[in-house]
Amino acid sequence: MKKGTAVAPSNIAFVKYWGKRNNTLTLPNNGSISMSLDSLWTKTTVAHAPEYKEDEVWIKSFRGKFEKVDGSKKHRVINQIVRLKKMAGIKNHVKVMSENNFPSDVGIASSASGFCALTAAATQAFGMKISEKKLSILTRLGGSGSAVRSVFGGFVEWKKGSSAGNSYAVQLAPETHWDLADVVAIVSTKEKKVSSLEGHDLVKTSPYYQARLKTLPHRLAVIRKAIQKKDFSSLGKEIEKDAISLHVVAMTCDPAVFYLNGRTLDVIEEVLDMRKEGIPAFYTMDAGPNVHIICEKKNMERIAKRMKKLPYVSLVLASSIGRGVRYSDQHLF
Amino acid sequence: MKKGTAVAPSNIAFVKYWGKRNNTLTLPNNGSISMSLDSLWTKTTVAHAPEYKEDEVWIKSFRGKFEKVDGSKKHRVINQIVRLKKMAGIKNHVKVMSENNFPSDVGIASSASGFCALTAAATQAFGMKISEKKLSILTRLGGSGSAVRSVFGGFVEWKKGSSAGNSYAVQLAPETHWDLADVVAIVSTKEKKVSSLEGHDLVKTSPYYQARLKTLPHRLAVIRKAIQKKDFSSLGKEIEKDAISLHVVAMTCDPAVFYLNGRTLDVIEEVLDMRKEGIPAFYTMDAGPNVHIICEKKNMERIAKRMKKLPYVSLVLASSIGRGVRYSDQHLF
Repeated sequence: MKKGTAVAPSNIAFVKYWGKRNNTLTLPNNGSISMSLDSLWTKTTVAHAPEYKEDEVWIKSFRGKFEKVDGSKKHRVINQIVRLKKMAGIKNHVKVMSENNFPSDVGIASSASGFCALTAAATQAFGMKISEKKLSILTRLGGSGSAVRSVFGGFVEWKKGSSAGNSYAVQLAPETHWDLADVVAIVSTKEKKVSSLEGHDLVKTSPYYQARLKTLPHRLAVIRKAIQKKDFSSLGKEIEKDAISLHVVAMTCDPAVFYLNGRTLDVIEEVLDMRKEGIPAFYTMDAGPNVHIICEKKNMERIAKRMKKLPYVSLVLASSIGRGVRYSDQHLF
Repeated sequence: MKKGTAVAPSNIAFVKYWGKRNNTLTLPNNGSISMSLDSLWTKTTVAHAPEYKEDEVWIKSFRGKFEKVDGSKKHRVINQIVRLKKMAGIKNHVKVMSENNFPSDVGIASSASGFCALTAAATQAFGMKISEKKLSILTRLGGSGSAVRSVFGGFVEWKKGSSAGNSYAVQLAPETHWDLADVVAIVSTKEKKVSSLEGHDLVKTSPYYQARLKTLPHRLAVIRKAIQKKDFSSLGKEIEKDAISLHVVAMTCDPAVFYLNGRTLDVIEEVLDMRKEGIPAFYTMDAGPNVHIICEKKNMERIAKRMKKLPYVSLVLASSIGRGVRYSDQHLF
């Protein structure tokens, strides 16, 4: 039996990936930029052995226990495994165990950390020697685009690219460059009604999608520069614009997709109030109702404390900027 | 002393007026369609007399008493009066008294009924004989564009026009054509932070505004046809799209304008739930947080009752479709 284990961070997008030009190859319509998160991660062990009779996938979700999964969830994981097995020339069945330390399917990029960890663990179990760039490309093929950014730590850009071979993530600056943090105010852990996968497909029905794409080259440039110069105010303003822009596209799809709910707007108001009081903090939401509050590390605890006091916030996750994917000898089984 | 009194309905826009090509002449960037509301109105008396020493404006707001107003509020009223006096050759000072039977400045078109009633009352006091078309044009010059639609009852379209002389309202169908109603769920009576006037000016900063304008000729056509055929489902879907589109533009202005708040989204969810339960009802919001629920008259009471039960809804106003502006002998003073 051969095993590989990897731990991959979740990441929060400053410029969101939304809409693809190719579903099979997961080629995005726009470049995206994110920050990798230290405390939110997925750990995955992949093993293969001739004695395994079938492929098995076990997932331990947040505060849950390991459960064997079936159906579409298993299908997505095994699809990626089959692709990698083929490349590595492996014929055995596999066992995959994966643990998430935060709630999944609620817009906190659990598929990003999940598919990055899966791909890294599998390539290790299969004895593949690959570069980070190649890992990023292989991760992309798993179907969760945002996962490619979890390969790297710090600030990461996923280049849109022009073909399957040159759409991958690069590090803009390491996690040591700038002490930022993300306080996630969870207002709902209900699984979202419209998955990100479906959301990506719906974008073509929004009359505002092309206008969004047109604004992005400028936004990417502003954010790259803000990261380089550690200009928090300029970064923050642009992050908020991008978050609203994603939800604008979602809300104007046919049918309309509301990832935001009433509590999301309540948290946004709280963030705006904090800013008025002199605490620099900016909001962003992925394709879900929960609000990520981007701040400087020195304000993280204070903001987390404030969020915990809000009666409609059920859970607060705070994380510094963190490393990219890493391998581990501490296998899950 | 000569007096004129008029009662004008508020109206709810199915396609919103948002953004102008000329501020002085109040020429809109797009045509709009609305329904006039029976139970939400402004009553205004205008008098002029040689013995008046100065212009006076008295306003009785919702649940309040008559108060003499000053500053910009008075200024807007007197501006319109001065314009009409000039046309009528009147030199006297005026006294204006106006009563609103619903909350103002919270996105329920109080300036629509207000400026329509003011213009009609003044033209009567000044002895001007004018057509409804002319009244609509004069009302427009008062600066509240939506007011031009309150001249007519039933379903009304304000044609964008190509010049100052041909941008006015026309009736698409009278109030007897189709028994619709509007249930307004008030979630906030706080005066909005950004007025509609400012909102109109900000649209040029939204990267999505041009995309909104491009969708409108089709939307206007769909809504005209839905009214003609009394196709409630088709009308409702398009109304919702237009409401979201207005707020999409507002939220993506620089600075971003949030007319919506958490409670707005809660009411929207309730409307979507009602639909799932088989009660046909569609939401729309003007430039404010309050939600207008458009329904067939037969469902009005039922929907109003349900809205009253929501703890975050402070007031419910229900109105059938109604008449346009009318003159009255029952002067306010």
